Order: sequence, then C-alpha cells, then structure tokens
Amino acid sequence: MFRQSHLLGIEPLAPAEITALLDLADTYAEKARAGRARGDDLAGLTQINMFFEASTRTQASFELAGKRLGADVMSMAMGASSVKKGETLIDTALTLNAMRPDLLVVRHPHSGAVDLLAQKVHDCAVLNAGDGRHEHPTQALLDALTIRRRKGRLHRLSVAICGDIAHSRVARSNILLLGKMENRVRLVGPPTLIPTGAADLGVEVYEDMVEGLRDVDVVMMLRLQKERMDGGFIPSEREYYHRYGLDAAKLAHAAEDAIVMHPGPMNRGVEIDGTLADDIHRSVIQTQVEMGVAVRMAAMDLLARNLRAARGVRAAEAVQ
Amino acid sequence: MFRQSHLLGIEPLAPAEITALLDLADTYAEKARAGRARGDDLAGLTQINMFFEASTRTQASFELAGKRLGADVMSMAMGASSVKKGETLIDTALTLNAMRPDLLVVRHPHSGAVDLLAQKVHDCAVLNAGDGRHEHPTQALLDALTIRRRKGRLHRLSVAICGDIAHSRVARSNILLLGKMENRVRLVGPPTLIPTGAADLGVEVYEDMVEGLRDVDVVMMLRLQKERMDGGFIPSEREYYHRYGLDAAKLAHAAEDAIVMHPGPMNRGVEIDGTLADDIHRSVIQTQVEMGVAVRMAAMDLLARNLRAARGVRAAEAVQ
Amino acid sequence: MFRQSHLLGIEPLAPAEITALLDLADTYAEKARAGRARGDDLAGLTQINMFFEASTRTQASFELAGKRLGADVMSMAMGASSVKKGETLIDTALTLNAMRPDLLVVRHPHSGAVDLLAQKVHDCAVLNAGDGRHEHPTQALLDALTIRRRKGRLHRLSVAICGDIAHSRVARSNILLLGKMENRVRLVGPPTLIPTGAADLGVEVYEDMVEGLRDVDVVMMLRLQKERMDGGFIPSEREYYHRYGLDAAKLAHAAEDAIVMHPGPMNRGVEIDGTLADDIHRSVIQTQVEMGVAVRMAAMDLLARNLRAARGVRAAEAVQ
Repeated sequence: MFRQSHLLGIEPLAPAEITALLDLADTYAEKARAGRARGDDLAGLTQINMFFEASTRTQASFELAGKRLGADVMSMAMGASSVKKGETLIDTALTLNAMRPDLLVVRHPHSGAVDLLAQKVHDCAVLNAGDGRHEHPTQALLDALTIRRRKGRLHRLSVAICGDIAHSRVARSNILLLGKMENRVRLVGPPTLIPTGAADLGVEVYEDMVEGLRDVDVVMMLRLQKERMDGGFIPSEREYYHRYGLDAAKLAHAAEDAIVMHPGPMNRGVEIDGTLADDIHRSVIQTQVEMGVAVRMAAMDLLARNLRAARGVRAAEAVQ
Repeated sequence: MFRQSHLLGIEPLAPAEITALLDLADTYAEKARAGRARGDDLAGLTQINMFFEASTRTQASFELAGKRLGADVMSMAMGASSVKKGETLIDTALTLNAMRPDLLVVRHPHSGAVDLLAQKVHDCAVLNAGDGRHEHPTQALLDALTIRRRKGRLHRLSVAICGDIAHSRVARSNILLLGKMENRVRLVGPPTLIPTGAADLGVEVYEDMVEGLRDVDVVMMLRLQKERMDGGFIPSEREYYHRYGLDAAKLAHAAEDAIVMHPGPMNRGVEIDGTLADDIHRSVIQTQVEMGVAVRMAAMDLLARNLRAARGVRAAEAVQ
Repeated sequence: MFRQSHLLGIEPLAPAEITALLDLADTYAEKARAGRARGDDLAGLTQINMFFEASTRTQASFELAGKRLGADVMSMAMGASSVKKGETLIDTALTLNAMRPDLLVVRHPHSGAVDLLAQKVHDCAVLNAGDGRHEHPTQALLDALTIRRRKGRLHRLSVAICGDIAHSRVARSNILLLGKMENRVRLVGPPTLIPTGAADLGVEVYEDMVEGLRDVDVVMMLRLQKERMDGGFIPSEREYYHRYGLDAAKLAHAAEDAIVMHPGPMNRGVEIDGTLADDIHRSVIQTQVEMGVAVRMAAMDLLARNLRAARGVRAAEAVQ
C-alpha cells in the first residue's frame, strides 16, 4: 500500500499511502498511551539524523521514534565541522552512503537539498525533516493524524491556515496533503505573507481573519518568523496580533467545535493568545507533538519494510 | 521505603529514603567494580536529558547511568534552538510531556525551574541535575555515599564545607543532607561568600580556615566561581589560595584520618593544592565521580519502580 | 596475534598485528555489504568518545562502529564545558576513569595528549582518533585495508603521498605503516610542506609532481589546510592546484592501474580535480570511508578481547 523508497514530501504520496501511514501511526500512538511503545521493528538498522538547521523538537521526535523501534540512532551535529571545512553536500552524501546507514533523516536550509541527497545515496531510505521553503512532510502527516483523531475524519473539512504562509514549508506540505484528501483549504494572512500564485494551489485566500475563519473546522496557526519584521513584511508584533493573532473573539467565528493547531514553538501573544493555546477543549497543540512521534515511527517502519523487501529481491537475484 | 515521584531536592527526603537510595547505589558501585554493571532495569523506558546549562561531567554521568540500566537515553542540546526561538519553559515542558518520556533529567540556571517543570509533566519522573542556587541533590547523595563508604558511617561526623558557599547549590544540598543524617556542619569562608542567615541552617560559621578545619572528619572544598572575583567578593586568586586554599599545612588541623572532597572540576592551586588533590590516602575526589554514576543509577531505578507502580494502579483502576 | 592494550599509533604495531587487524576488518566489511553488520561483540561495554577537536566524520565512524558491535556509546562534547572551566587534561582523564568506561576514543589538538591520557586511565582501552601532528592510526589502517582490497596485496607497492605532509598526522601514520609492510613511499609537495628530516623516514622526496607520480601504484592526496596559506607556506589556491592538484594529466604518469585516495573532506579544485575524485575506476575515496567503519570495529573488537582477557587474569589472581 505504501510504495515509497523515501519520504521526501507529500507531493509524491497517493491518498491511500497517506491513509496507510496514518493507520499505522494510530496504532503506535495507542501503544505509547498504554505504555507499550518500545518495539524492535527497526532492530539492527542504523538511523542517522543530519540536521543542517538546528531543531531541538523535530530532531528529538525523530530520535525518540527510532529508539522506540529499536534502531541504532546517531545524530550528527552538522555545521559544526565538515560544513565549515567547505565540504559539498554531495560529498557529505557520498561519505554517509559509504557508512551504509539504513535510514537517513535530513533537515536542510535549501529547498531541494534533501531530494538531491536521496538521489546520491543507495540502499538507504531518506526522510525529509524540512528543506527550505519546500516541504516538511512529517509535520503535515502529524497534523493530519491529529485532525483525523479529533474530527473523526480527514475529508470534507474546512481548514484555515493562518499567518506567514509564503515562507512556510509546513503550510506547503499541509496544503498538498489536505488537498489530496479532499478538504477545503483557506489561506488567511496579510498579502505580503501569502505566496504569489496561491490561487493555483486550489485554495481560497482571505486577507481578513474573521472572514477567513468563518465556519471552518480547523484553525491552523503558523509560527511568525520574527526575522520577517525586519524585512518589512509586517508592521509590528502588536499590530500583527491585533489583526491576525488568534484569540477567543476571532475563534468565535469558526465552527462551534473548531480545533486550534500550531506546529510550535509558539510566540504566545504574537500569533496566538496564551490562554487559548492552553485550552484543552479547543487547542490540540500537545496532541500534535504526541502524534509527531507516532507518525515518524510509522514512516520509518514503512520505509524500512520497503528497504528490506528491495534487499531481499536483490539478494535473490544475486543467487540466480 | 523510597516514596518520591521525583528527585527535586534533598529537602523533601526522609532519612530512611536517603539510606535506601544509598544502599541500592552501593550495590551498583560494587557491580561496576566487578565489571557487571550492565543491567536492564530501565529497559523499555525513555530517559531525556535537558541541560539548559552545559555540564559535560554531570550529563555524562546521568547518560552513563541510564545506559547501564538499559534505558533509551536522549540528550537534548537546549539553548541551541527552542530557547533561542523564545519558547517558554512551560511550553518546553508541555512539548516534552507530549513525547511521553519516563525519566526527565533537567539542569537549569534558575532556582525553582525544575520544580516548575515537574508540576507540568505527567506520568514522568523528574530528576534535578542542578537548578540555580537551589539544589543539586544527586551531588549531595554521591558525596554522602563517598563519606559513608570511607568513614563507615554517615552520622555524628564533623564536616567542614569551605569556600564559595553563598552561590553554591552543592553546598545547600549537602547542608540539608548532612543535617538530616545528624552530622555537624561547619561553613568556612570569607564573609562575602557565606550566605546571610547561615545560622538558621543549624550550622557553625568560621571565617578562619585553621579554626574551621580543627578536628573535622571531612573537608569538603567547593569550586571557586572565577566570575566572583570581578564582583569584588574576593581580592585575588593568590590571596584566596593563601587564606582558603586547602594544602597539607591547613589539613593538618583536621582529624588525622580526615578525607578531602571536591565536586570538580577543580581549580588546582586556587581552592586546592594539586598534590593534595592527587593523594589517594586523603583525597576521595575520584571516588566521588565513581559514586556519581552509582547514585544516579539508584535514583533512576527507584523512581522508575514508583512510576511503574503508579501506572499499574491506574491501569487496574481503568479496568474496574 | 594482536597484543596491544591501546591503539595509540602505528609505531608500536608489529606487521603481524597490522595484518590480523586488517583480516578481521575485512570480515566486518563483508558482513556490512551483506547487510549483516549488527553484532554484539561489545555488548555490555561502554565506549566514550572525547573529541577535543571537532570531526563529524571520524566521530560518526567510531560511533557507528561501536553501535554496530552493541556497545553503549556516549559522545562527550568536549570544549563545551569542562575545558572552558580550566580543567586539566589529567583531571579529565581521572574523571573519566572513575566512570569506568571500557573503550575511550580520543581526538586532541596536541601531539602526545592521547598517550598521556592512556597512562592515566586504568582498566580501559584507549584509541587515538588523531593527536596533533603525531598519529592517526585508524586512518592509516583504513587506507591500508583499502589498498589491500584493491591491489590484492599490501607490500612491494609504490605509494606517493602528496601535498601538505609536514603538518599531517595522516601522512605520518601512513608512512609508518607502509614502511612496516615493506612498500616504497614517496613524498611529493612544495619544500615548505615537506617535513625536515624526511630522508630519515626512509622515503624519497619529490618537489615535482610528475616525477613523483611516475609509475606509482597508489596516489594518496592530502587535504590542504587552508590556514597554511596565510602562513606563507603556499602562494595561492590556483597556483597550488596548477602545480600539485591531482588531475587526469598528472595521474597519467602513474601506473596504468594506479588508484587515487583522499582522507576527506576534499577541497575539490584545490588538491584534486572533482571529476577525477568521482571516477570510480580510479578513485577509492568512498571505499576508504566504508573501510573506516570496518577498521574501527576490528580495532575495538581486538582491544576489547585483550581487555576482557586481562580482567579474567586479574579476577583469577584475586580468587587465589
């Protein structure tokens, strides 16, 4: 059902593959809640995490997922050494490949860098943990699992993605996934933070937050990259919060049972009201983190199965 | 016997709990000396180390302790990422909680930060690896085990804690532990480095080193925080060493079989003479490090037992 | 056959010990290629990596090697903490020793620092992962294994080591190893980068690259330390590449089946032409990385056997 060799983005995934991955992730989430998370599906396999951009949360989530499945996990502090010495990304890939890892988790500041790496390594599954403004597939998958668990379905929902969309790989992967699963997606934010050509993505665009949130089932806030403010994209934190920060008053325009999401880390009082973020009736922000580990376990498990199957085929061919 | 859910400080511990922990640590220390340290008491559990202050030694000691007991250990490089992005301590705690670790080891520059974290996580044992000027309980416990092994008892001893006491969580935890176990504690140092209200702690205060060391069984030197010198707390390293640095001449005033301790890392020639530090007849500094691993193994083992028992009770209640 | 307690350099090794280590490494390399690398020969043992100089590749290679053999592996970020606090190398050694690791992998900027550490720890095997300009034994061993696999033998070969030899521990360990195994070694480079007294090493020295490469079986390029350029050792990158950078034209003077090596990370277009580096018919650079893991597995396995044997003897003596 899940036929991929790598998880580079949401774009190449078929809806049935997304569903298969979420179904498996659901079982891992339940096992974790029952205190029976530790398994050995990845025993004997080596997982290497290469984060060319620091990210404590995402790296921890992948590391935990690998260890819970019994992999030997190694996190390389990139940027510390070889990058400084001027090694090219390709040389890094070839070096890694020669070390024969089974799973390679990569975050990189440049869009497309992880795809490039995947082309250069052999006999190894690559997972994209975020590349430039391109994709962040496990984030979209954990968001999808969170929505499906809370709303009971992952289709025919109305989802508003709000804030700094233009620079967000999280938004991009979510738009792709929600579209594939036949949901309606709205983008809400100041025109300077909406990507040009948004209409081509099959989404509706709103500049006004109240209109944008009207009757939606899911409100997905994005992190405001503070460095945008220097660039003149937005006037000030206070002004931004007034117009686009999510609070109870704005949320009242959404559906009565709308849920609130945020990929973290949050800027409380900038893009979201702190009290609302902590309201367990509306906010599913902690569930997102929890589902993050489950989704990464499922992704690595499925990729490892395909990797082992491919190796079996090659070994059989070699015998003949 | 050991009834705690967390190890946040020495203050909440009953003497019998301290004894139970030290007894277990003793068995781990003996197993390590016999080359049989590796066990699986924490197998299937996840230990996360979060050091908001760098500490190679203490982090290594906790990591080693967890791995020796078979835990999946993950060390998060804090300060690298989320802290920079402005995430609050509470959000970090909630995020971690959602990842469902079993043991959480935290060092933080602010007094009380670890207690706060412990209130926010659920179904997880928190260990304080040092918070501000508040407590450093595993250091006091390893010091206690070292004393008990060398002196044959941990009561009715006379202990001098010397140096920069005012700013020291090590001193504070040791004063609490030694007091609970009915020892006499003296604080020795320049008035600027003695905490105000020291008398209320049930200790004697000495400004003169020779008087302070007279007939004591244990001399516990503290690390001199060099940044104090800029603050005007002490005149110069040379002057400090002359008055408060431990050497053979000053030690001659202590009991004939007095032992010398230091939590490390040492400033040789500032708070202690290098030759004395290496004298295996008097100095137990290496034994302290060795007992550090044993005490941390015991603490995590006992907390994990209580955690599993609590989970068992909840599971049984859920069935009914 | 392999009688060492530590692997501090190539200098103390007998030819038969080198052969024994390479033979074992060969079996690990084959297991890895067959997807059966994971073993438990080091299960129950603790490996601590202490890199006082950052090196993503070498550290990753040692970490992978240890985990593949089932060791509990811990990498301490040196320089971050205790070094800053002014702790001496000896105190670090004593601290580590008290934590009772079994295998200690050390890289240090000062020549001789790893030998010093090895003298201070007890009941623990020390591996030198590079010390100053002194030795980098596992690099020479992985180079030797790569040569032996590709050329079918490791004796009576003609090997040219080219470039920044004076400052290179890689060159030094290779000269020692290749000499012990009865090969002819040539050093090729500008006089400013050739060590004084090179003649005493039993090597031939060439200033001209074409003459130096004539009919050699192996061309071993070294990384150009860019900081040398400020020091006046070489005029400019362009000039250096013109005279000493390896390209197809220069390589044409070597033997027809000569192989090209580089310890990485490469400066493409400075010491080596990028196209040549990627030519799998001539370049064995990726094989070197692959053999690096195999050689480190073999070294740690052999040292662990000797460590366990020594412990067995001590235990037996203790019983009598």
